[in-house]
Parts: sequence; C-alpha cells; structure tokens
Amino acid sequence: MFQIQNTYIFIYFSLYLGGGMKHETIRLAHGAGGLLTSRLIKDVILKYFNNKIIKRLEDSAEVNIKSRNIAFTTDSYVINPIFFPGGDIGKLAICGTVNDLAMKGAIPEFISFSLIIEEGFPFRDLEKILKSASRAARKAKIQVVCGDTKVVEKGKADKIFITTSGIGIIKIDLTKEKIKVGDVVLVSGTIGDHGITIVNERLDLGLKSSIKSDVAPLNLITNKLFNFKSSIHFMRDPTRGGIVSVLNEMIDKTPYGIMIQENDLPIKREVIGATEILGIDPLYVANEGKFVAVVDRKAARRILKRIKSHILGRDAAIIGEIVKKPKGVWLKTKIGGTHPLLQLEAEGLPRIC
Amino acid sequence: MFQIQNTYIFIYFSLYLGGGMKHETIRLAHGAGGLLTSRLIKDVILKYFNNKIIKRLEDSAEVNIKSRNIAFTTDSYVINPIFFPGGDIGKLAICGTVNDLAMKGAIPEFISFSLIIEEGFPFRDLEKILKSASRAARKAKIQVVCGDTKVVEKGKADKIFITTSGIGIIKIDLTKEKIKVGDVVLVSGTIGDHGITIVNERLDLGLKSSIKSDVAPLNLITNKLFNFKSSIHFMRDPTRGGIVSVLNEMIDKTPYGIMIQENDLPIKREVIGATEILGIDPLYVANEGKFVAVVDRKAARRILKRIKSHILGRDAAIIGEIVKKPKGVWLKTKIGGTHPLLQLEAEGLPRIC
Repeated sequence: MFQIQNTYIFIYFSLYLGGGMKHETIRLAHGAGGLLTSRLIKDVILKYFNNKIIKRLEDSAEVNIKSRNIAFTTDSYVINPIFFPGGDIGKLAICGTVNDLAMKGAIPEFISFSLIIEEGFPFRDLEKILKSASRAARKAKIQVVCGDTKVVEKGKADKIFITTSGIGIIKIDLTKEKIKVGDVVLVSGTIGDHGITIVNERLDLGLKSSIKSDVAPLNLITNKLFNFKSSIHFMRDPTRGGIVSVLNEMIDKTPYGIMIQENDLPIKREVIGATEILGIDPLYVANEGKFVAVVDRKAARRILKRIKSHILGRDAAIIGEIVKKPKGVWLKTKIGGTHPLLQLEAEGLPRIC
Repeated sequence: MFQIQNTYIFIYFSLYLGGGMKHETIRLAHGAGGLLTSRLIKDVILKYFNNKIIKRLEDSAEVNIKSRNIAFTTDSYVINPIFFPGGDIGKLAICGTVNDLAMKGAIPEFISFSLIIEEGFPFRDLEKILKSASRAARKAKIQVVCGDTKVVEKGKADKIFITTSGIGIIKIDLTKEKIKVGDVVLVSGTIGDHGITIVNERLDLGLKSSIKSDVAPLNLITNKLFNFKSSIHFMRDPTRGGIVSVLNEMIDKTPYGIMIQENDLPIKREVIGATEILGIDPLYVANEGKFVAVVDRKAARRILKRIKSHILGRDAAIIGEIVKKPKGVWLKTKIGGTHPLLQLEAEGLPRIC
C-alpha cells in the first residue's frame, strides 16, 4: 500500500498532501510525525483538549500529584512488521514509553499495557511479544501494573496494536526555556538504525544487512545523568520524523537556531548504504533507542563521557550547537555549505512505531 | 460477521469456544469479557507480567508514588458502532477509564488519550468524537494531559480505536477482603441499557426503542460516598460480561456466596422487551454507567439514599446480599426458584466497549 520508490518521496508527499487540515479525511501522513501530524494535533485535537499541561506538547505530561512532580505519557504502537531485526512490537511498546518518561528527566516507575488483537492472531506470536515486552520492562526496571485486552474481527485490525502509558518521578527539571546560545547539542548514538531496518523489512528489498533496530530503554543512560542536573537543559528522543523533527520542535518558539555539523553525525556505514539505495535521508528517519540533548557547554564533555560509558551510548557525539543566528535548524555540510533542515509536510514513514 | 440469532447464542458459544487456551489462535470471545478473557489474562498475560500489583486484577492498579496511594488504569475502546444512542466512542473512552478509577475509590485526576485512526476516516467524525470526549472529561472533572495519534492504512483498522489511561488519588480503601456475610449488594441503576443499545444498533433490527446507552462518569456519584468510607467494602462496574461476571469476580477467592433477588433488579421495561426479542439475558449484558457495591448492612439504606440523590443513581436498588452458603452467585427468581448465575465461557458480545 505504501511504497517508497525514489528520492522524490518527500517532495511528492509535500505536494500531494500539502495544506493540512483542508483535507476532509485522515491520511497516512497525519500519523507519520511530520508537519501534518503536528497540525492535526495543534489545530484539531488541542481545540478540544486544552489545558496548560497538554499544550506544552512534550513527550510526557508533567502532572502534580499531592505536590510531587510526576511524568505521565502514552503511545500507541502500530508498527509493521510486528517482528523485526532487533526487536518486536512488544519490546517497542515498553521502550518507547519508558523513553518518553526518560526524556522528561524522570525515573520510569509504572507502565500499563493494552492490547487490541485481530481475531485469528496466533497465540505463539502473542506469547513471543509478551515475553519480549516483559524482558524489556525488567531491563528498564519498570513494573507493568495494569492492562486490557480487546479482540476485533478478522480484517478489522492489522494483527496487533499495543498502547502503553507510563508514570515516572521527575528528577531533573527540563524545559525549552533553559536552552541558551552556546549550548551544545549531542546525540546518544548512531541515527537512522530503526527506521532503515523497518523499511528494509517492509519492502523486502533483500538488502543483505547487519542493520537492526536500536530499540532500547534510554533510562539506562539517563538515570546516570541526574547529577548533571543543572547542566542538562532539554532532551528529546528522535522517533517519528527523525532527528530533524526533534531539532525543529526543540527550537520552535525559542529565539534561537541550531547548527548541526554533518561531519559529526554518527551514522553507521550500513545505514548510509541503505539510505542511498532507498533514497531516504537518515536525518528524517525514526530512532527508538537514541536521544538528543541540549546541554551546557561547560559540562558537555563530561556528560558525553558519562553517556559513552554505557554500552547504549558508546557512539554518542556532539553534533552541533545553539546559535543566535540563523534561526531554525541548519546543516553545515562536509563540503562547507549550509542548508536548512526543514520539517516537511510528511517526512516520516507510516507505521514506523 | 458476528450475529445474534436466537436464545442459544450463549450455549453455542460455550460449545464452540470451550476449552480456552487450547485454541491456537485468538478468537473474538477472548476479548468478550467472559471466562475465555479471564483465562487469557491469567494463563498467558500474567505468565509474563507478574507482580503483586497486576496480579490483583482489579479495575485499577494501586501504585505507591512517594507514599501516596495512586490508582492507575487503562482500557482500549474498539466499540462498534462508534456512534450510538446516548454516546460515542469518545465519551465512552473517557467515562470507561474514569469509572475504573472511581471503582477503586479514587478521585480521577489525569487521563491520556491515544488514537489509532484508519486512513480515510472523516475529520468531521473525528471532531465529533473529540468534542464529546472533551465534554465528558469536563463533566468528570478530569484533565486530558497527554495523547498520541497513529494512522494505519485503509482496511487495517476499523475506523477508530481509542486507548485511555487514568490516574486518580485513592480516597477509600476497597478490597475484597472487606466483604463479609450479611453485607448488602446494591446496584446504582438499571442494568443492560448499554449492551442492548449497541446490539440493537449493530443488528439494525429496527426495534423502535427509546433505549440508550447509560455511558456516564460514575465519579459524579462515588465522589459523594467518601464519608461512608468504612461502610463501603468493594465496588465494580459491570461492563463486558455484565453484572454476572462482576458478581462472580467479586466473590471469587472469598469463602462466601451472593444471593440476588430477581424481583429487586432494576431493569427498564424497554430493555426487557428488547432482550426477549433478541434472546439475550440482560444480566450478562454490558453497562457503562452503573456500579455494583458491597456495603455494610447498617449503612446500606443511607448509602442507597445518597446514591439516589444523584440523577445518575436515581434507579439504584439493593439487589442482594452476601451469604455464607451457597457459595457462588445465585438468583432467587420471582416464582421462588434459586438458580446459579454462572460466568460462561464467552457470555459477552465482542466490541461492546
């Protein structure tokens, strides 16, 4: 149904789907993490659910329970295929939600696990998914405390969808307002691994490849960063829409820009190879085990070292900085050019998570 | 796909689907709230997610956050049709989760709202659903603080599925352990309204009917019961599987039985009429705005009066009591017989919520 044929995919989508809310029906791109998704949320959903907390549109909501700052988040997982190199929908549903809590500077504590299953789904696959979710939860030290199971008729869902919600205790106060000129932007590891793995699987291109999804619980790293409290200003995990979407969201409504150095971007050789064949820009591709952090320049090296000391962060790198001008997100290319990294109408792939 | 043809539906299901986990694939009945659902949860899901909290299998998990007792719950809503007399999937997704918190004796505080939408779904319908969800949230005084939006290809989901998770602050400590012989069982209003409305709509029987779903936020009543703290022993809302499932779950693993008086069951005349035509037992039919409570006999009249003072509880009634013998759930019929009310293999209807 959804095919990637050439490098023009983004342009094609932009033209075909441009205009956002004027469409009368929901399109795939409304769920792909690009501008259309963000317009759907801002123009439609926030019209009805409007309060100070949800309006911040952060990875987790910050709620106050009896004067405790609690992070609360939810995500539905509809990834296709449900099993892929490096993980499956169960592991993803745990890690994705754990990561949203971690990005809020929280220690993930409790998670819910709700299943929508298509009639005829094999028990064997269900058990594989539950087993891998359970292993991920153990690794992330989060307890699955509640759940739900719904079944719909054959043909009324695609195999299995999982929705998880997480609760965590906030340890670092991270807000955009802390971002300032001179801050350093770092990424916790190589980018593009998850998205390229899924595309490779889905299109069955037979790319002989050692690429696998990076899906992992990021709190294993972020829990170690709490003593850099005041030096860490903001964190996001670049899932749907990739690193470009996250950088644009970070800088949105701030008076600053971000300058990224192409030379410093950690990208696996196999991922670059695959993106060239597939005609996809890895900067727009989803990750499920990486985060981008904006940190104080003075502490940047020490924070980087701490991240690299964990196996999940071994490829971490400083990739750019917050600048006064130009506004927006920019890439300084290897040959010395400077190009804007724009959030496109529908840069993401559907059902990547 | 799913048809109700005659009074033998339950027997048919029992024979056809009996045996539980020996099936190799998931069947509709695994999500219908009967014994098969409960076996799926106990035999498969709890094998992987096993901790003291989830094992209680209550409507909400009780979690401890910095020594505060917090209720945490989740449900996915896959109801068909998505619009029905008395409500829609949006209102249901808010009320259902609010009610799970209310049944745990909690004040609902925060809710998440996660959408899985089928490509091609009309924006107009999405807005109707969001509007009604937002109105329900306002009524229940709960804040929608986070959400997610996923879109899947046409034919890969049935219009729209919603998953909500809720957080509440526990005010009354309700546990099965408090149930004792002589306790009174009461229901907060007429039963069967929601399920019969959905079946009537789905089968398009053209039953001229004033029946509508009872979907409503029960915390509007339960918030008023906090000063009966020690007299309220246990509460459950009889959704999937109806009042019989809930009564059986209440008494499960206790040494007692429940005797229900058929004469005292509040059921609307139109619902009885419809159930006779449809061949369905209203005691097995889902409700979405009612609760069953086990309360101390001494306070029962006063609690009943308080419930009846709210418009949502005006038809509340005492329907039975906790007995030492016989064990299990029993119905004393109008003509004086005593019949067991058994939880059947698959007594519920699929996609009723």
